[in-house]
Amino acid sequence: MKLIRFGAVGSEKPGVQLEDGKRLDVSAFGQDYTEDFFGGDGLERLKNWLADNAGTCPVVDSGVRLGAPLVRPSKIVCVGLNYAKHAAESGMAVPKEPVLFFKATSAIVGPNDDLIIPKGSEKTDWEVELAIVIGKKASYVSEENALDHVAGYVLHNDYSERAFQIEREGQWVKGKSCDTFAPLGPFIATKEEIKDPNNLHLWLKLNGETVQDSSTSDFIFNVQEVVSYISQFMTLLPGDIISTGTPFGVGLGFNPPKYLKAGDVVELGIEGLGSSKQTAKAYQ
Amino acid sequence: MKLIRFGAVGSEKPGVQLEDGKRLDVSAFGQDYTEDFFGGDGLERLKNWLADNAGTCPVVDSGVRLGAPLVRPSKIVCVGLNYAKHAAESGMAVPKEPVLFFKATSAIVGPNDDLIIPKGSEKTDWEVELAIVIGKKASYVSEENALDHVAGYVLHNDYSERAFQIEREGQWVKGKSCDTFAPLGPFIATKEEIKDPNNLHLWLKLNGETVQDSSTSDFIFNVQEVVSYISQFMTLLPGDIISTGTPFGVGLGFNPPKYLKAGDVVELGIEGLGSSKQTAKAYQ
Repeated sequence: MKLIRFGAVGSEKPGVQLEDGKRLDVSAFGQDYTEDFFGGDGLERLKNWLADNAGTCPVVDSGVRLGAPLVRPSKIVCVGLNYAKHAAESGMAVPKEPVLFFKATSAIVGPNDDLIIPKGSEKTDWEVELAIVIGKKASYVSEENALDHVAGYVLHNDYSERAFQIEREGQWVKGKSCDTFAPLGPFIATKEEIKDPNNLHLWLKLNGETVQDSSTSDFIFNVQEVVSYISQFMTLLPGDIISTGTPFGVGLGFNPPKYLKAGDVVELGIEGLGSSKQTAKAYQ
Repeated sequence: MKLIRFGAVGSEKPGVQLEDGKRLDVSAFGQDYTEDFFGGDGLERLKNWLADNAGTCPVVDSGVRLGAPLVRPSKIVCVGLNYAKHAAESGMAVPKEPVLFFKATSAIVGPNDDLIIPKGSEKTDWEVELAIVIGKKASYVSEENALDHVAGYVLHNDYSERAFQIEREGQWVKGKSCDTFAPLGPFIATKEEIKDPNNLHLWLKLNGETVQDSSTSDFIFNVQEVVSYISQFMTLLPGDIISTGTPFGVGLGFNPPKYLKAGDVVELGIEGLGSSKQTAKAYQ
C-alpha cells in the first residue's frame, strides 16, 4: 500500500495511491496517519476497509498538493555519516557505531513544497535519504526482530545548513531543524512493497544535473542495524521517522562547496518510493 | 496559576494547584494542556473558567500520582553548558553562543516517577534545570519580545548518560533520550508567578546531600536570549519545552566521577517551581 496525505497545509486528508498512480481519498476510513494509526494495526485495518470501500472513495485530482504522508510524529532521528564516501567528503571519519542526531518535527513539509532558505543562511545543502517509518513501539529490539517494528519507507530530503550545523557551537540539530528542511513523501510505501530496503537506488538532481547517485547497498549500518541500535538509547514510537543518512554528492563536498540559492530546483527519488521536487525560495 | 496533571500513566487529567497547595481536577474545563491549549489562549480561558467553576471542581487527593504537567510537546530543546562553572567541570569551554541539543519527548515522565537506569549504563547523571514552556509560536523572535512567547516555567531533571552522550560516536542526544530521563513538574508556574526567571535559586540533593546549589542568575545566556536564539534556527511551537542548562555539581564533575545506582534518591527544586523526587531503579 502507498499512503499519501493531500490538501492545503494544515488541513491534509489521508489517501492512498494505487498501482496505476490514481489517488483515492480515504477520509471515510475515519483515521489519519497518526501514532495511534500505526500503533493500532491501522495498516491492516485500512487494507481490509479498502477491500470493501475502495470503489466508493473519491478520486483525488492529480493537481492537488501532497502533504507529508503522516501526521507529525514524536521524533525524527537521523543517522549521520552512514555512507563511507559521504563521510570522506564531509571531512569526517567513518564512524564505528551509528552517529545519531535529531531534526525538529516542525521542519516537516510536503514533498513538493518550497524550500525556504533561512534568514542569514549561506550554506543550505541537500541530502537525499531513505527514511524508515516505525510501525510498532521499539525499545531494546534485536537486529533479527527490527523489521517487525517497521511500517514502511519514505523519501526524505534532509536539508542542512552547514554553517549552522558545524560552525555555530556544536550539535548538528541547529543546522537541521529550520522550517521546510524535512520534505517527506510523495508516499509511504508499506514494508511489503520494498523487497530489500538495503538495496535501493537513490539520486538527487540540482537544476537537472545529477549530483547524488548511489544505492542503500552502500550503507555502513543497514536498516535492521539502525533500528536496533537506536532502540538501545530511546523508545521509538509508532510513526517515528528514522532517516538513514545520505550518500556522496552533497554541496559541502564540492570543490569549492556549492550551496542552494533562490530559484534552484532540487529533484530527488528512491527506487520504489517515487520522487519529489523542491524549489528554493529566500525567506521573506 | 499552577498547572498540574494527575492520575495513572497514560490517562492523566488536567488540574490546577492553588496557593494553599490544594489541587483541583479541571477535567470539566474540557481541554488538556496540549499545543492547542497553549496556542489557543488556553491559560486565559482556563483562568476565566476557574473564576466561575473552581467551587465545583473535585479536589485531587494528595496521594494521587502527578504526571508531567503538559501533554507531550513537539520538542524538548536543551541548552548545553549554560553556566560557566558547569562548563569547566565538564572539561568544555564556555560557549560563545548557546549550544543546543534535543531530548526525545518519549523520555518525559512525572516529577516523582522512578528513574530507570538504562541497560548497560554505568554513567547515569543528574542535572537540575529551569525549563521554559512556550506559549506562542516563535520564529525569528527578538530578545525584547521573547517573553511574549513564554507560557511559564517548570522544573526539569535533564538526566544524562555520560558514556552514551560523550563516548559513543558524537551528538549528545544519544545520552539524553532514554525513557524516564525527563521528569517534568510538579507543576507549570505561569509566567506572572515568576517575577524574574533569571534570578531563581535551584538545587539538587543526592541521597539527602546537596550536590547542586546555584541560581539562574549565573546563566551565560538568559531566558530571553535563549528563546530568541533558538527561534533563529527553528520554529518553537506552543507547549514546546526549552531546558536552560544545569549549574555546577553534576556527577561527571566529581573526582572521581559519581554516577547513579539503583536505590539512589534524587531530590531537586527551583524557587517558585516546587520540588520533585526520583528513585533510581535498574532496568528490568
